Amino acid sequence: MEEESKSLPSKDNFSEWYNELLMTAQIMDVRYPIKGVYVWYPFGFSIRKKVYNMLRNLLDVDHQETYFPMLIPKPELLKESEHIKGFEDEVYWVTHGGLSELEVPLALRPTSETAIYPMYKLWIRSHADLPLKLYQIVNTFRYETKHTRPLIRLREITSFKEAHTAHATWDDAEKQVHEAMDLYSEFFTKLAVPFIVHKRPEWDKFPGADYTMAFDTMMPDGKSLQVGTVHHLGTKFAKTYDITYEDEKGERQYVNQTCYGISERCIAAVIGIHGDNKGLVLPPNASQTQVVIIPIIFKKDDGGVKEACQKVKELLRANDIVAVIDDADERPGAKYYKWEMKGTPFRIEIGPRDIKNNSVMLVRRDGKKESIPMDGLPETVRNKLFEFQTDLLNAARDSMLARVKACETLDEAKQQIENGWATMPWCGEKACGLEMENAVNCKLLGEAHTIKGAGKCPICGKATDRIITMARSY
Amino acid sequence: MEEESKSLPSKDNFSEWYNELLMTAQIMDVRYPIKGVYVWYPFGFSIRKKVYNMLRNLLDVDHQETYFPMLIPKPELLKESEHIKGFEDEVYWVTHGGLSELEVPLALRPTSETAIYPMYKLWIRSHADLPLKLYQIVNTFRYETKHTRPLIRLREITSFKEAHTAHATWDDAEKQVHEAMDLYSEFFTKLAVPFIVHKRPEWDKFPGADYTMAFDTMMPDGKSLQVGTVHHLGTKFAKTYDITYEDEKGERQYVNQTCYGISERCIAAVIGIHGDNKGLVLPPNASQTQVVIIPIIFKKDDGGVKEACQKVKELLRANDIVAVIDDADERPGAKYYKWEMKGTPFRIEIGPRDIKNNSVMLVRRDGKKESIPMDGLPETVRNKLFEFQTDLLNAARDSMLARVKACETLDEAKQQIENGWATMPWCGEKACGLEMENAVNCKLLGEAHTIKGAGKCPICGKATDRIITMARSY
Repeated sequence: MEEESKSLPSKDNFSEWYNELLMTAQIMDVRYPIKGVYVWYPFGFSIRKKVYNMLRNLLDVDHQETYFPMLIPKPELLKESEHIKGFEDEVYWVTHGGLSELEVPLALRPTSETAIYPMYKLWIRSHADLPLKLYQIVNTFRYETKHTRPLIRLREITSFKEAHTAHATWDDAEKQVHEAMDLYSEFFTKLAVPFIVHKRPEWDKFPGADYTMAFDTMMPDGKSLQVGTVHHLGTKFAKTYDITYEDEKGERQYVNQTCYGISERCIAAVIGIHGDNKGLVLPPNASQTQVVIIPIIFKKDDGGVKEACQKVKELLRANDIVAVIDDADERPGAKYYKWEMKGTPFRIEIGPRDIKNNSVMLVRRDGKKESIPMDGLPETVRNKLFEFQTDLLNAARDSMLARVKACETLDEAKQQIENGWATMPWCGEKACGLEMENAVNCKLLGEAHTIKGAGKCPICGKATDRIITMARSY
Repeated sequence: MEEESKSLPSKDNFSEWYNELLMTAQIMDVRYPIKGVYVWYPFGFSIRKKVYNMLRNLLDVDHQETYFPMLIPKPELLKESEHIKGFEDEVYWVTHGGLSELEVPLALRPTSETAIYPMYKLWIRSHADLPLKLYQIVNTFRYETKHTRPLIRLREITSFKEAHTAHATWDDAEKQVHEAMDLYSEFFTKLAVPFIVHKRPEWDKFPGADYTMAFDTMMPDGKSLQVGTVHHLGTKFAKTYDITYEDEKGERQYVNQTCYGISERCIAAVIGIHGDNKGLVLPPNASQTQVVIIPIIFKKDDGGVKEACQKVKELLRANDIVAVIDDADERPGAKYYKWEMKGTPFRIEIGPRDIKNNSVMLVRRDGKKESIPMDGLPETVRNKLFEFQTDLLNAARDSMLARVKACETLDEAKQQIENGWATMPWCGEKACGLEMENAVNCKLLGEAHTIKGAGKCPICGKATDRIITMARSY
């Protein structure tokens, strides 16, 4: 699996750049013989591992991880009619075991409500069992008929983190919605992925939910990428699957539920937002390796360079900073190319002159270069990693916000969404919303707390202080 | 999900005990509406998490984790004819996406050779790419027609760790077989699961392999449970999937491959071997919680007991020993019951008398009880956890070996396998082997390095120094 020296198309041509980068940096191999199904390269999976361990650590504070079956019997899947309507065209069906036809066809889970909630019915009996907060990280399946794209639109979603909670009251569940949003905010901030949270319009909420809050980020082409969702399910599923508890007074009540999910789209966002023409740019939190050390050797007598590299590596590792030495028999330039392609946050170059100065040359993946003293090296590197992480997030957030623009007319919005998102007043009526989507050829992402304003609905002309975000979307 | 106070059937009735324990200790819920498909309770999954993280840590030293697709197109699956013959009756087929019939039926992976090796063909080009050592931890599927059993015989294997390696020569691959066996030996030793490694007879090797080495353990009913396998694949799959590399001389050669797997059967072994009539007994390495601290309070003024419990918990946690305090409003006896059911290795009881003596009462899950001083507590607990782990392994190994008996006649073997394993001379001929299996109504596990002897084949009478193990098996 040797890398090739190959240059990427310019990131201005985002779609082409993205596809090339996934192969060249060895994130995903697109050559698997099923449309919409891709293979994680080991390097790509190292990012997945790092990112999902971070997600696990956040969840494990007050959730428990578990695992529910991948196969769902047809009658269970069909029980919740509103829910299944959202998925029925996209479900894969297992009809045969060996050469025999199955009596009951089995669905590959498109998401796991219908696998989990029949068990919740058995597990929850009393108010003392609440709240129940479980999650799992699993593969899910959608028979996508739209254009598929690695990490973004998949027939096998390999890394779906889905949490499912049950609570005594609607308000308790709403509180959980906010806790989940806080948790996701922390997660995406750690990933240096900026986002705006939208409350999805009624017609675009999760099938069966009371409402849906979605984390949207902006890709370099201005399109929105939904990277996380949090749903308040109310008692909808509880009524279908008969999930009840006995309250303090001894009366049976339906539970109120929430569910929230994140998929490998979070990694697509990191790649798409931060990468550049040289390859990946990984925030330190998403990279297995934080620092690559490159020995700069001019002649046979290395002047102590190798020894110094070893010492720096051990110093950093002793301080929980993952550093590796690239001592391959290649020119430094070839090594720079390779590690830049892989997005390693920092490169440390050590040559005879650095040793003389008792310092090393630190190069950030974004090109910033400075000599730093050996004294206090681990602390300096740690601080600078944090600084780099923060710089990435701030730059990405600024870039996103600069491309969100309040528009006054539908024509203006239509132009705006070519490179970003448009915001406009909206009266709140579905008919007007759908007409806006049609007129602008976009999706209404919904309303965001963080975007305020007032004006007139562009369709019916009613005065309103509701502002809605419009975007082309993945 | 409150536990009930319920006693288990005696472990003498192993099968009933096992099924009851899985539910009562909340390992697996068997009430999912598909035969042979079970749900991990969060507590059960905490064991899975702990055990598989240990396995990951062992593998990550020189393997890379990755993820290959779950769906395999029919033509790829059928390519290796000998391999598919081993699985064809057991493959689940996806035939529909939404309402449309798929052009190419897709198999749910029964194991991943046929998903991975077409990619190895693309990834391996030169000797510099070798060895390649990847692994994944995934769900796999078998349409089992035999009697299914949680963690042991499943239609969805939720936790299949499969490693796939490629090497330049047959000897290199053989070296890898031994490395994998060493790795598995370390893994099972850490799990306190004793084993005997058998070279499977020709007719029972992995379909397509040159040979198969299997890790067998003995369950309390004397049946063998195969908990791990290591296969030398030679160039069989390389020839089918055209996986070649250019050697140092510039000539194309087929790679030699190995693969090796472990499933959640490793957890079935821990449960079955160590559990007792009170519930689970977890080796410290398999338990998320090592120590439960129970405050013993007699009156309202607790005499500093709660504070002491908190102090002990923090002391232990600061030393990487996971301790929890059970301060529920229940009698100590009810708490003992609960934590014994869950197999927590150590219980620490702290009452006013212990505080006066500056000590705590330490109770091992197997009942051994002693007062230990507060001075140096974390070191003492750590040493005693290690001792407990070792005691469990030694006791289990002794118990297993005591039930392996050299037999002279087939009748004797038939009687022996009622409660253990029989060993007998065998000439090495398949015909004789199959006749032995028939006569004794058992499986020939194969030959073990560790079991030596000589005698006459009970079928043909030929003198031989090959000794084969016979057992009823799961």
